[in-house]
Amino acid sequence: MKKLKRSARLVEMTQYLLARPHTLISLTAFAERYQSAKSSISEDLAIIKEVFEDEGVGDLNTLAGAAGGVRFVPRCRKDQALEKIVAVCRELEQPDRLLPGGYLYMTDLLGQPGLMQEVGRMFASAFADRQIDVIMTVETKGIPLAFATAQFLNLPVVIVRRDHKVTEGSAVSINYVSGSAKRIQTMSLARRALREESRVLIIDDFMKAGGTVQGMVDLLHEFRAVVAGVGVFVESGEVDNEERLLHDYISLARLTEVDLKTRHITVQPGNFF
Amino acid sequence: MKKLKRSARLVEMTQYLLARPHTLISLTAFAERYQSAKSSISEDLAIIKEVFEDEGVGDLNTLAGAAGGVRFVPRCRKDQALEKIVAVCRELEQPDRLLPGGYLYMTDLLGQPGLMQEVGRMFASAFADRQIDVIMTVETKGIPLAFATAQFLNLPVVIVRRDHKVTEGSAVSINYVSGSAKRIQTMSLARRALREESRVLIIDDFMKAGGTVQGMVDLLHEFRAVVAGVGVFVESGEVDNEERLLHDYISLARLTEVDLKTRHITVQPGNFF
Repeated sequence: MKKLKRSARLVEMTQYLLARPHTLISLTAFAERYQSAKSSISEDLAIIKEVFEDEGVGDLNTLAGAAGGVRFVPRCRKDQALEKIVAVCRELEQPDRLLPGGYLYMTDLLGQPGLMQEVGRMFASAFADRQIDVIMTVETKGIPLAFATAQFLNLPVVIVRRDHKVTEGSAVSINYVSGSAKRIQTMSLARRALREESRVLIIDDFMKAGGTVQGMVDLLHEFRAVVAGVGVFVESGEVDNEERLLHDYISLARLTEVDLKTRHITVQPGNFF
Repeated sequence: MKKLKRSARLVEMTQYLLARPHTLISLTAFAERYQSAKSSISEDLAIIKEVFEDEGVGDLNTLAGAAGGVRFVPRCRKDQALEKIVAVCRELEQPDRLLPGGYLYMTDLLGQPGLMQEVGRMFASAFADRQIDVIMTVETKGIPLAFATAQFLNLPVVIVRRDHKVTEGSAVSINYVSGSAKRIQTMSLARRALREESRVLIIDDFMKAGGTVQGMVDLLHEFRAVVAGVGVFVESGEVDNEERLLHDYISLARLTEVDLKTRHITVQPGNFF
């Protein structure tokens, strides 16, 4: 790379760090990349760090010593996140979202990459300090959320399938009971998708009693893997505590009331706030 | 936002632009955001533009006049993209990827957000100058690619389902014949997912004769929508030209040979290169 002036170097370092979240970059690597003294690089990083923290982009963690360097950890500011989620709640309360059976149409929101990025940043912020090897979701609607989160945490994603596909090779299948509908369903995961003893973050778009998430937990047992965390975009608050299969999770929004007659829907910020 | 020094402003502007691809931002908005003269903002943008172009991050297009401003258009450098795709081809040629029926296991690659980002940037670069309203894919494996592309093009995504889900509301379903297996299958899309006359970019992970993509095209007709482009990650070259249902598409890699006996697989860069 050609030698850059200070101003251009700041631009380049900013884009380089943003593209490499949760990745340790040594000062030596930066100094070589920009043909600059480590002291200059350190000054630049201090400027970037201050802007990132002020604007709620994330932290720049510096590790001292020979193996030291800098690591960009994406974060969200709670006040900015809450403002965004309140707007999502108002969106979800629109009466025309109500579907037969009391379900809410939210596919349009899950199809907005900008919103998915913001939600992914919130999950990445919530789980930034846990030790996680891989993110898991079940097809289909949780996939954009899982990938957005994975991008900010720099982790791979595995997708649990509803049935066993020929393009997945040998797979492990389990049956599970979806908590609310009490129906027996199947989910499967390719044998080679997950290493034994992986620490897994489960991400999904919607959770009622938690049967689907519990199914994923059971599937993890088959791989001798463990749950490192559970994050759901919207949880249903219309579940008794004793009916709930899962208690340790983070939700961003909570559907507290659905009145099929009046079409009145109430959605509030979840337990993340 | 507090007034920043020049160096901090460059960092902030860089992260602000990167988070808003294909979005016109007026010089006035920047000048107010940073409480700076438009002439200073213009100088900063010139620095960012040069770095982005040199590093293959993308273009900063400036529009002059009263309604003018700047738009960040993500691009990839062809040489960098080719280098990346060649590495993907070598990955895909590993004999243990071969599955019964001659399928290739590539789910692990599709689960890497970093690779998906790079591939999304390639598609976004390839289709940057077309007029597109929405990106469409069919569940499941194409979804990460569709979202990565959508993020760089600042467009929404609609996901075609294999069956009709209660959480989607009323839907339009069609039957289609998968070109290679000659099996009749169903796909469906929520009525409210797509506006009439939308211009649609279709993205998928794998294409053989093109039956699935052709199914999506047929589905678009039901919505009076039109195809603005087709991008596939890997195409199978083991299809006669007369068997191929689709000729106008961009592929990033081409599977040219699969020998089930010797387990020899050959994958080459696709027609994008």
